[in-house]
Amino acid sequence: MISIRNKEQLIKNGETQLDRKARRLALCSLESAVNAVDPAQIMKSKLLLKDTILHVDGHVFDMKEFRHVYVLGGGKASGLMAQALEEVLGNRITKGLVNVPHGTRLRTERIELHGANHPVPDQTGVEGTRRMVEIAEEAEKQDLVICLISGGGSSLMPLPRGNISIADKRAITDALLRSGATINEINTVRKHISEFKGGWLARKTYPATILNLVLSDVVGDPLDVIASGPTVPDSTTFSDATRILKRYSLWDKAPSTIREVLTDGEKGVIPETPKANDKTFKKVCNVIVGNNRSASLAAQKYLISAGLNTILLTSTLEGEARQVGRMLASIAREVRLSGNPVPRPGGVVAGGETTVVVTGKGLGGRNQEIPLAAALKLDGTSGTAVASMTTDGVDGPTDAAGAIGDGKTLIRAAREELAPTRFLAENDSYHFFSKLEDLIFTGPTGTNVNDVSVIVVL
Amino acid sequence: MISIRNKEQLIKNGETQLDRKARRLALCSLESAVNAVDPAQIMKSKLLLKDTILHVDGHVFDMKEFRHVYVLGGGKASGLMAQALEEVLGNRITKGLVNVPHGTRLRTERIELHGANHPVPDQTGVEGTRRMVEIAEEAEKQDLVICLISGGGSSLMPLPRGNISIADKRAITDALLRSGATINEINTVRKHISEFKGGWLARKTYPATILNLVLSDVVGDPLDVIASGPTVPDSTTFSDATRILKRYSLWDKAPSTIREVLTDGEKGVIPETPKANDKTFKKVCNVIVGNNRSASLAAQKYLISAGLNTILLTSTLEGEARQVGRMLASIAREVRLSGNPVPRPGGVVAGGETTVVVTGKGLGGRNQEIPLAAALKLDGTSGTAVASMTTDGVDGPTDAAGAIGDGKTLIRAAREELAPTRFLAENDSYHFFSKLEDLIFTGPTGTNVNDVSVIVVL
Repeated sequence: MISIRNKEQLIKNGETQLDRKARRLALCSLESAVNAVDPAQIMKSKLLLKDTILHVDGHVFDMKEFRHVYVLGGGKASGLMAQALEEVLGNRITKGLVNVPHGTRLRTERIELHGANHPVPDQTGVEGTRRMVEIAEEAEKQDLVICLISGGGSSLMPLPRGNISIADKRAITDALLRSGATINEINTVRKHISEFKGGWLARKTYPATILNLVLSDVVGDPLDVIASGPTVPDSTTFSDATRILKRYSLWDKAPSTIREVLTDGEKGVIPETPKANDKTFKKVCNVIVGNNRSASLAAQKYLISAGLNTILLTSTLEGEARQVGRMLASIAREVRLSGNPVPRPGGVVAGGETTVVVTGKGLGGRNQEIPLAAALKLDGTSGTAVASMTTDGVDGPTDAAGAIGDGKTLIRAAREELAPTRFLAENDSYHFFSKLEDLIFTGPTGTNVNDVSVIVVL
Repeated sequence: MISIRNKEQLIKNGETQLDRKARRLALCSLESAVNAVDPAQIMKSKLLLKDTILHVDGHVFDMKEFRHVYVLGGGKASGLMAQALEEVLGNRITKGLVNVPHGTRLRTERIELHGANHPVPDQTGVEGTRRMVEIAEEAEKQDLVICLISGGGSSLMPLPRGNISIADKRAITDALLRSGATINEINTVRKHISEFKGGWLARKTYPATILNLVLSDVVGDPLDVIASGPTVPDSTTFSDATRILKRYSLWDKAPSTIREVLTDGEKGVIPETPKANDKTFKKVCNVIVGNNRSASLAAQKYLISAGLNTILLTSTLEGEARQVGRMLASIAREVRLSGNPVPRPGGVVAGGETTVVVTGKGLGGRNQEIPLAAALKLDGTSGTAVASMTTDGVDGPTDAAGAIGDGKTLIRAAREELAPTRFLAENDSYHFFSKLEDLIFTGPTGTNVNDVSVIVVL
């Protein structure tokens, strides 16, 4: 059970009884959201072994048809997923190896948890990934390989191709990021300098059957992007990767090892990433066991059970955090003024992942800027709360998971002589909410399906 | 009847039958929105004269109790409002004067339409406003003064105090705008250098009864902001106005005439703007005859009648246009993927007024950036359209009212070798949609309640 540690304090900070009620509902709703994507819980609720049949989200695997069951994977939540999988399958698992962040303290029986570096990949990650490839290549037609993929999987499972070093890979990724390349462009390059990503794990596992269980940390759940898609066909080419480096004037600056691999790839010396029509993928079953929608729906369900009229606005929210905050405030205002989009008492849930373009020198995170920007528009009304938190418990470079604002935030700030607009302009939402004691603290939660924001209007 | 001139062409631009249907629904919905706030229509639907009783939105005025009925006001839609008022009250109107933009070609019998400059106020506006004050001062206890206020009223009804010239007033307003002052701060200064705004018209009309009919062009309908609130109490002071000029280091640069008025005001030589407890306001009845919500609800009503599952998200939308566009796209995506916040076929309406921080050198408007930013996220789906338009028919510095995007916009753009992200980065949405022939044209509509955006997901 993941909980907001300072929930009682956050509720008490409400100025009126109605404010405290709105805060309680918003915070409990966020707690429900994050607990709905607890890796252990979600694995046990999605997987059912009855007699010899494993049921997974409508798919069926007869375990007695498989000679061996191997488990591979990586990600921040993959250790907990492995532990839960052992509880379900027990000694049906032959063996396995999953890359998890260094310092993960979990006990498993049959699946080795291999410590690797995160978020900066290093040789420890490479070693684990190489051993996964060995297992994948060992698997034969009558074997089942279960992959456990979660957020952070990309950096926890590095396997650069040829002579490319981890440092080379990091250099090109950083250069692309700085040049403003999109995540799709970066992934195109990444997949073509890897022996694992972009469908290569699936290809190496063939002809064994793959059951890929994914806890999605990417908005919209694009399977080829999550952990760079080791079991998913890639639609891009070596030529695309080269063109992207040239587009951002990075070709000449790229490490020579990378240029060699891409040039060899274009010549056909190195095979292209496996494409959608490759027979490999006939043996792959991809299942999203949890995503932002799971969390957002749980947040909504809590509010419904509390008697609110609710909508789930979206689970694919993107955009600049402060703008999203303003928009959420405008919806809160409309609920109050006209009963749209839901009549009072109303609850609106929006999930996804916003971004913050940092221009100031302060400390903060997207889930702290959302309630700050929203509070600026809430105008002293009672019983309106806007709370936002990241499901992994660590919002931006802070120790908070998010924050809560309400119609009285501005009044309380004025009393403390805080200028909210200045904190927002300085990207200093952390210190703003810290002074009001309105930061949400959970500690790291062990899961990650991005963020959930909740509006309550009583 | 206001219509989208090129509606048939815009519908035809849909690639598939489903796209064409989505476009038709979105465009007809926007047409319904703007027609719902046609000044003539809305006056006739809100005002009812039965025998001697004038019914206005729940308020009742017995016309036989009034000796004279005067009509004052100003704004871009106030000419049409005056014409409609004459149709309702006929020769019960004693006389009146309303400031309208130069070139307004409307016929009225008893209410003089006085041409004034817009959006830059000039002496023609001052003359008309001065004559309104004369009428207001002529009005006595048993008289009714009906004010017709609409967007643009602030610049159409200038009446600077003391020796302040129109040029002085313009200089300080421009300087405040450039300094990043908020609209509330600018209005505080404006009200304290005016003899008309900030409740002064009401004070001069006292003890006559005032019926203030407002077509609101300000998000959230703050009566003290619309046309700078000539009939509404002001809560700010001369000291506030002085402090604001000093806050932005404009005091020393301000015209000496303005410094004199503010200094005299602080000394009490000039009376403070009338406050909420002033007896003046006991005689004032403010009625919003139309606002963004009227338009947005009409857009929703159209979609309901077409069989869609709909919500009105908000009528107080604010924020950077492209961010709003992304958020609308994320809602469209959720409708498609999970049936939230409404199941398919779904329609979502959002009204308000977004802003564009211009960083590029292109041509565009907020209602063109919204569908462009949304289209970037629509990923080739069929039957999804996002359209946005301003109700006054003139979006930003362009001759278009808005634009429409759909799931095929990116594909069509690629065919024309247009790079949508580059157009957006250059704030060049006009030329982007111009090349796709997806700009919405209505011409000036004679009304203004800001903008309406519609998502249709079939």
